[in-house]
Amino acid sequence: MADEKTDKLPVNVTNLTSQIKSVVNSESPIMAQDFSWLHRGIVEVFPQPTDINSEIESLEKRLANSNRPLRVKLGIDPTGADIHFGHSIPVRKLRAFQDAGHTAVLIIGDFTARIGDPTGKSEVRRQLTQADVAQNAQTYLDQVRPILDFDTPGRLEVRYNSEWLSQLNLGKILELLSTMTVGQMLAKEGFAERYKKENPIFLHEFLYPLMQGYDSVAVEADVELGGTDQKFNIAVGRDLQRHFGQTPQFGLLLPILIGTDGVQKMSKSLGNYVGLSEHPGQKYQKLQGVPDNLLAQYFELLTDLPLDKLPENPRDRQMLLAWEVVKQYHGEQAANEAKEAAKSGGKEGAVPEFSLAEIPHFPAKLAFILNATGLCKSTGEGRRKIQEGGVRLDGDRITDVDITYQEPSELYGRVLQVGKNKFVRLVP
Amino acid sequence: MADEKTDKLPVNVTNLTSQIKSVVNSESPIMAQDFSWLHRGIVEVFPQPTDINSEIESLEKRLANSNRPLRVKLGIDPTGADIHFGHSIPVRKLRAFQDAGHTAVLIIGDFTARIGDPTGKSEVRRQLTQADVAQNAQTYLDQVRPILDFDTPGRLEVRYNSEWLSQLNLGKILELLSTMTVGQMLAKEGFAERYKKENPIFLHEFLYPLMQGYDSVAVEADVELGGTDQKFNIAVGRDLQRHFGQTPQFGLLLPILIGTDGVQKMSKSLGNYVGLSEHPGQKYQKLQGVPDNLLAQYFELLTDLPLDKLPENPRDRQMLLAWEVVKQYHGEQAANEAKEAAKSGGKEGAVPEFSLAEIPHFPAKLAFILNATGLCKSTGEGRRKIQEGGVRLDGDRITDVDITYQEPSELYGRVLQVGKNKFVRLVP
Repeated sequence: MADEKTDKLPVNVTNLTSQIKSVVNSESPIMAQDFSWLHRGIVEVFPQPTDINSEIESLEKRLANSNRPLRVKLGIDPTGADIHFGHSIPVRKLRAFQDAGHTAVLIIGDFTARIGDPTGKSEVRRQLTQADVAQNAQTYLDQVRPILDFDTPGRLEVRYNSEWLSQLNLGKILELLSTMTVGQMLAKEGFAERYKKENPIFLHEFLYPLMQGYDSVAVEADVELGGTDQKFNIAVGRDLQRHFGQTPQFGLLLPILIGTDGVQKMSKSLGNYVGLSEHPGQKYQKLQGVPDNLLAQYFELLTDLPLDKLPENPRDRQMLLAWEVVKQYHGEQAANEAKEAAKSGGKEGAVPEFSLAEIPHFPAKLAFILNATGLCKSTGEGRRKIQEGGVRLDGDRITDVDITYQEPSELYGRVLQVGKNKFVRLVP
Repeated sequence: MADEKTDKLPVNVTNLTSQIKSVVNSESPIMAQDFSWLHRGIVEVFPQPTDINSEIESLEKRLANSNRPLRVKLGIDPTGADIHFGHSIPVRKLRAFQDAGHTAVLIIGDFTARIGDPTGKSEVRRQLTQADVAQNAQTYLDQVRPILDFDTPGRLEVRYNSEWLSQLNLGKILELLSTMTVGQMLAKEGFAERYKKENPIFLHEFLYPLMQGYDSVAVEADVELGGTDQKFNIAVGRDLQRHFGQTPQFGLLLPILIGTDGVQKMSKSLGNYVGLSEHPGQKYQKLQGVPDNLLAQYFELLTDLPLDKLPENPRDRQMLLAWEVVKQYHGEQAANEAKEAAKSGGKEGAVPEFSLAEIPHFPAKLAFILNATGLCKSTGEGRRKIQEGGVRLDGDRITDVDITYQEPSELYGRVLQVGKNKFVRLVP
């Protein structure tokens, strides 16, 4: 397992360590400090000191020598409400920086979300209202609350990028654009293939990497976290910071999490995901079934457990993973309950059931069902909770206050949820 | 001569006329109207009704049927102060539209001029102050005053494009950019060659055609005039107007004037130009030497004379051209004087001379010389005139109030000018 991990670390991290040894005194605080929290489960840190350019400072050196907390940026796209464990990977790394005394700067990309796709062609970039964005951002923050340190003063800064992007005028935008050439932009993964295939690339698409890069300027980021697909954009941020007289940020790239099918990238549309807002029992069920080939990565990325002390038996490893992760998000008691429920064979785990036979008549409004199940104290409270975005069915938020079900069978087996902690499974 | 002109008219103008005949009644006001003022000396009008797309309205039809004056746009780059007869070609066409009852919309491109080139690499696009731009714009207007109708109400609108461009925010700019693809932009003449040669094209350069196009949206242009090199930019304006729900403008392309050397495009740096601010005598001298092969184009573009009634003798044609053009800018008396001066062999024409021997001592400040020559009433007025940008030496504006000449010989043969009408030639 430990070997596997070492194999996965990029070669240049090893090079980096030897570089540091050669340039700093062995008594230096850098060598004294333990950076395993930084190195765990990462793909790459850039830039790196190289033989050619050995005066580049390493991130480790910066961390060790800085006389102030570093500002560690993570950008969030508030177009969707629910996030899954794939999204949690950089957030967990952000927490590791917080624990080392640094400042997490979460940037909610509300500006782009509120503009949508100007060509109107992309379903993905549909235009959201300010209220949509605010609600999605709040839902996001609720979901990452168990991961991040929200309480220690100075450890978390939440910023909306409309704060600075809405202030940009044409002069400034020309300046941003002037820092890059068409050739550089077309070299970006994604653009290169589309250009080669003569698929249209709209000019405004060239601005998005610059907007993300300008976020780094605006918050004066020292480090930016992202998936491996973010390397280009993070590098653009470095260039812009240099252009505006700032010390360029480091990029720290994290792997893309494979879904519970063991094959494809975790994704809601592929159904191979574990959602952060799912019930502890659901989380446990999904995680205890993770294929053996994924266990190493899941332990490395989703837990802080030492990787050389894991159980030998694969089934024990699966159960430890499930228990450990549920504990992180819901506490030890919920983890134990989920484990017991799973043992007792109840595939549905610890979700209490409610028999729809108790509802006297259908069609029935959801607000009425919320009251009948006891999740809300009245139909009126049910309506309010729906309006506030606090009601979910199988994890999907319901926003239509008048939604009505014709037959109880439409709801059989589905999990109805209010807020973070109230669930019932609807049964016949 | 008349044949030569017909040859130069693009084939599709002929096609256009036959199209109109086929779609409108011969009693229509279009056929009754004389559009020779429109067709004289142009390269192309676009779009044109075609066999494929015969429902496209022609510019002639629009002119004939519009129940309001059309808005005819010409963009001006206020980075240089002095303009020459090459610049006058579209301005003269603008005057023709004014005389036909339409509104000339002169757009001073102050926004771009004030930004300069954000890469800082282009000497051409150096950043100008607001005061520079205002002075250049004023100088431009002074020079085109003899061409345009400044007096008839509703015939002239002067606009500065910072009025709308400085108001653009990132959302709007993304929208502008989203109307075009990288492939379309790289097809633009200039970009295509540079991209092929792997010469860098900076991203902000893609915004300039869109900014010019957005000018058309802002002023709701019906027609845009420009040199043949402006076809792409004018077409971008059409696309943006369509995007914003306006009827797209027509493009009217004018030829690039060949300089007095008969070979290259007229250009100040090549020395083959006649400046609009030059003395009548200088204009006459230069124009009476225009090579025979250029006379047809010069008559067509720089005068309103009927082209089939020109003198047969080439020397007579040269003199008629020179006289006619000087008359346009300075009136009949000045034209006659310039002609007499030229006849009497004085290569310097009607410029009075001032002997520098009259100045008691050198080094001498220019402000002092201005007083000594009588061009200004005092050294103080000389300083003020320099500060106001009203003083030129050989047509180049002097802006340094303290400029000092060490020896009279530095000035021998040069023409010193204050305002539009006061000149002396400095002689030993």
